[in-house]
Amino acid sequence: MPEHIHAASKTKWDVVIIGAGSAGLTAAVYTCRKKLSTLILSVDVGGQTILTNHIENYPGFFKETPGYPSGPKLMQIFEEQAKHFGAEIIMGKVTKVEVVNESPTPENPYKFVLELSNGERYEARVVLLAYGKVPRELGIPGEKKFIGRGVSTCATCDAPLFRNKNVAVIGGGNSAVEAAELLTKFASKVYLVHRRDQFRADEITMDKVKASPKVELVLNSMPAEIKGDKFVSGLVVQNVNTQETRELPVHGVFVEIGYIVVTDFVKDYVEVNKANEIVVNENCETRTPGLFSAGDLTNIPFKQTITSAGQGAIAGLSAYNYLMRLQGKAGIKADWA
Amino acid sequence: MPEHIHAASKTKWDVVIIGAGSAGLTAAVYTCRKKLSTLILSVDVGGQTILTNHIENYPGFFKETPGYPSGPKLMQIFEEQAKHFGAEIIMGKVTKVEVVNESPTPENPYKFVLELSNGERYEARVVLLAYGKVPRELGIPGEKKFIGRGVSTCATCDAPLFRNKNVAVIGGGNSAVEAAELLTKFASKVYLVHRRDQFRADEITMDKVKASPKVELVLNSMPAEIKGDKFVSGLVVQNVNTQETRELPVHGVFVEIGYIVVTDFVKDYVEVNKANEIVVNENCETRTPGLFSAGDLTNIPFKQTITSAGQGAIAGLSAYNYLMRLQGKAGIKADWA
Repeated sequence: MPEHIHAASKTKWDVVIIGAGSAGLTAAVYTCRKKLSTLILSVDVGGQTILTNHIENYPGFFKETPGYPSGPKLMQIFEEQAKHFGAEIIMGKVTKVEVVNESPTPENPYKFVLELSNGERYEARVVLLAYGKVPRELGIPGEKKFIGRGVSTCATCDAPLFRNKNVAVIGGGNSAVEAAELLTKFASKVYLVHRRDQFRADEITMDKVKASPKVELVLNSMPAEIKGDKFVSGLVVQNVNTQETRELPVHGVFVEIGYIVVTDFVKDYVEVNKANEIVVNENCETRTPGLFSAGDLTNIPFKQTITSAGQGAIAGLSAYNYLMRLQGKAGIKADWA
Repeated sequence: MPEHIHAASKTKWDVVIIGAGSAGLTAAVYTCRKKLSTLILSVDVGGQTILTNHIENYPGFFKETPGYPSGPKLMQIFEEQAKHFGAEIIMGKVTKVEVVNESPTPENPYKFVLELSNGERYEARVVLLAYGKVPRELGIPGEKKFIGRGVSTCATCDAPLFRNKNVAVIGGGNSAVEAAELLTKFASKVYLVHRRDQFRADEITMDKVKASPKVELVLNSMPAEIKGDKFVSGLVVQNVNTQETRELPVHGVFVEIGYIVVTDFVKDYVEVNKANEIVVNENCETRTPGLFSAGDLTNIPFKQTITSAGQGAIAGLSAYNYLMRLQGKAGIKADWA
C-alpha cells in the first residue's frame, strides 16, 4: 500500500462500512459499542440528510427543541458519536469489493478486500454497504454542459447563488418542493416544473410553496433543453398533453427528480430489485454472508433519515451476530431481554 | 360515550395509535405531517426508553452532545414533537379493537372501533399497534407477594430506594447488566444472577460491571424463591449444574429477564410468531388492511429506540399510503425522489 496522508491507521478491520450517512454512521455506533474495530470509507460525511436545512421529522430534533439543529448539524453529531465510540472515517471512493477468502477462520478471518480509487486496500471480516444513492440525470441537451454553471442537484448548497434571479426546479417529490421553498428565499421567481399535475410531497411543505407569490407551478411539463451561452439562460419545457413548448427565462435549473443506486462494483455479491436497489432481508443481510447493507440504497420501503438510522442499527447488530456465530458463540438475542 | 375529563377532543380519527413509545410517537409525527388527524392512546408516555438513564446509542444524542438528554428527556422531546405537529395523547388502556366496517367508503370511512377500560370509544380509519411489551415474570414463590416491597422490574425507578443495601439483579441481557451497573451507585452489594455463564449485554457495559468491586456474578444459577416477612430479606438461587441452593441476603430483587407481548385483544386481526410478536411485513402491515404495527411488539429483529423509531416512520407512511389508495390516489412513492 502506498503511503498516503489520508490512509487509515491500519489495514485490517473487523468491519468496513462504505458510506457515512445516517445508516453508515449509526451502524458504526452499534459495531463500535460491540468492540468491533470499525472503518468508514466514504466520499462525504452526512449523506442525504445534510441537504436538508430544516429537519423536523427526525425524532428528538425539531424546531421547538432547544439547540435544534439543521441537517448538517445533526449529521455532525452522528459523526462525533461514531468517532466517540471508536470509528475511524477515511474520505475515499471505493472502487472494488472482493471476497478473497470464502471460509474465514480465526487464523485467517479476513473475508473481504476493498480497494479505493487511490489504490489503498483494506481487509475486512465484514463489509457493510451504506453509501446511498446519486442524483438521477434529466438526460436532455445542455444538462451536462451547464452543470455548475446554472444546473444544480443541490438547492441547499447553491440556492444563495441565485439571489434575485429566476430559477426552475424540476420534480414532484419532497426534495423538489423543499428546494422550491428554499429558493423562494433567494430567487425572484421560482418555476416548479413537474411532469404530472399532482405532487408527492408532504402537504405541509406543499402548502408553503403554493402560498408563495414567487412560485409558478408548471404542471404536466417535461424539460426538453437547457439553453445558454457560458451560463444557463433558459429552460425549454414541453407540455405532455398539448406538446406545446415554452422557454422559461431562468438562470438556474435545479434537478430534483430522484436518485439511482450504483452497484457495479458489488454486483457479483448482491441481488438487486427493479430499481437497482440492494435487496436485504429483515436482518440487513445480502445474499453474501458477511456482506450487509442499510439505508437508501436498499429495498427499504421509505427513504428517511430515521428509517436509514434504524436499518443501520439492525445491520450493525446483525454483523456482530454473524461474527459471533463464526466463532461458535451465541451472539445477542433479538430482544433487549 | 360518558363524559370523561381525559377524553379526546373528538371521537372519530384518521389514525389511532396505541402506545406512546418511540415507535408510536414517531408514527404520529409522520401521520400528522401528512395532515391525518392522529390520536394516541397509551398507559404511559415514553415506553421502554424512559427506563434508560444514559442513552448513548440513539443517533444524535450521546454524552458529548450539548444538552445530551437521558431516556426520559429524549422521550419528552419525542412527545413534544408529536404534539407540535398535532397529535393528541390520551392516557388509557385499550381493551378492545374491532373491525366494524369491512369496506370503508368516503361516506363511511371508519373501519375500526376501539374501547378503553373506562368505556370510552373511538372510531378510526387506521389503527397502529405500538404498545410494546410488558416485563416477563419469574414465576417463583414470593415474586407476586413482594412486588413493590423489594421486587422491582425497573431499576431506573427504584434503585435509589436501596442505598447501602444488598440487591440481586436477575438476567443476562443489556437491561440486567445496565440495572446492575446503576445499582452499584446505590447498593452496598449487587449480585448479578444469570442462568448461563455468558452475558448477552454490550461488552462496553459488561466491562464496567465486571470492574466494580460491589458486583458478584452468580452464574449458571436460577432463582428459586424470594423470602421475607413484610419486605424481601433473601433470594434463594439454585445452581443449574450442581443443583446446590444458596440464599443471597438481599433486600431488593430486580427482575430483568425479558418481556412478553400482550395480543389477546387483537388476536382476531393479526398473525403472531413463536414469541407471540405481531408479524408485519416491510411496510409494517399486519394481515388486516388498515391495521399496522411498529416497535418492540413486532417481529422486528432487534429492539432498540432507533429501530422502533425507524419502524414507526415506516408504519406512519404506510398508513398514509393505505388511506390514499382507498381514495383512489397514488400515495407517496417509496423514494424521496
